[in-house]
Amino acid sequence: MKSMLVVAHGSRRAESNDEVRELARLLGSQVDASFESVSCAFLELAEPSIPDGLRAAIAGGASEVVVMPYFLSAGRHVVTDIPGEVDIVRAEYPGITITLAPYLGAAPELASLILRHVQSG
Amino acid sequence: MKSMLVVAHGSRRAESNDEVRELARLLGSQVDASFESVSCAFLELAEPSIPDGLRAAIAGGASEVVVMPYFLSAGRHVVTDIPGEVDIVRAEYPGITITLAPYLGAAPELASLILRHVQSG
Repeated sequence: MKSMLVVAHGSRRAESNDEVRELARLLGSQVDASFESVSCAFLELAEPSIPDGLRAAIAGGASEVVVMPYFLSAGRHVVTDIPGEVDIVRAEYPGITITLAPYLGAAPELASLILRHVQSG
Repeated sequence: MKSMLVVAHGSRRAESNDEVRELARLLGSQVDASFESVSCAFLELAEPSIPDGLRAAIAGGASEVVVMPYFLSAGRHVVTDIPGEVDIVRAEYPGITITLAPYLGAAPELASLILRHVQSG
C-alpha cells in the first residue's frame, strides 16, 4: 500500500495549518489507484511532525510513502531539514520505502497554473 | 497596458530569489495577450521591494498591474503585509489600477497539479 505525505512548514496561525490538512483531504478524495491514502505533516509549529506523520502512515498499512514537500523554493528546509526528518524514520523502518518527491515549486506546470489562476481571479 | 507582478517572500538564499525571477521570465514568455509584461518583487530580503516593483512596472508603461502573491498560505504576509505595500503605491498613483489576485495556495487546480507532479516525479 502506497501513501502520500504532504509536508508543509507549519504556522503559528491555526488556519494556515488547517489549509494544509484540507488540501490533504482534497488530495485523498481525488487520488487515483496509485495512492491509497494521503495525509499531512509539518516541519515546525504544528502537529504531526514529519516522523510522526510517517509513523502513522506506516501504522496504517503503508509499505511505501511518497513525501511531497509543499514548499515553493528549494531553501534549507527542502534541501536539508525535510530529508533529515525522513531519514529518522527510514532508520526505524528499513523495510519501508520512503521517497521524496520534488518540492512543489519545481513542478513545471506551475507557470501555466499561475496564468490561468490570475486570469480567472 | 496590463502587467503582472509576482510577489514572493524573498530569501537569504540567492538561488531561491533567482527561482522567482526565472518564474517571472517563464511567465512572461508564456503569457497571452491579457498581460504585456511580467516581473517580480519581494516582500523582504531581496530586491526589488513590492513598491519598487510596482513603480518599475508603471514606469514601463503599465496602466494596470495585477499583483500575484506567490505564497501557499494566507498568513499575515498575504493578509496584511502585501496589501499594505501595495497601498503605498496606490496612494502615489491614483490613476493606475492595482489589483491583488488571490494567493497561489488558493488556486483550486493546485490539488490536481500536485497529483500529476507526484505521479511523474
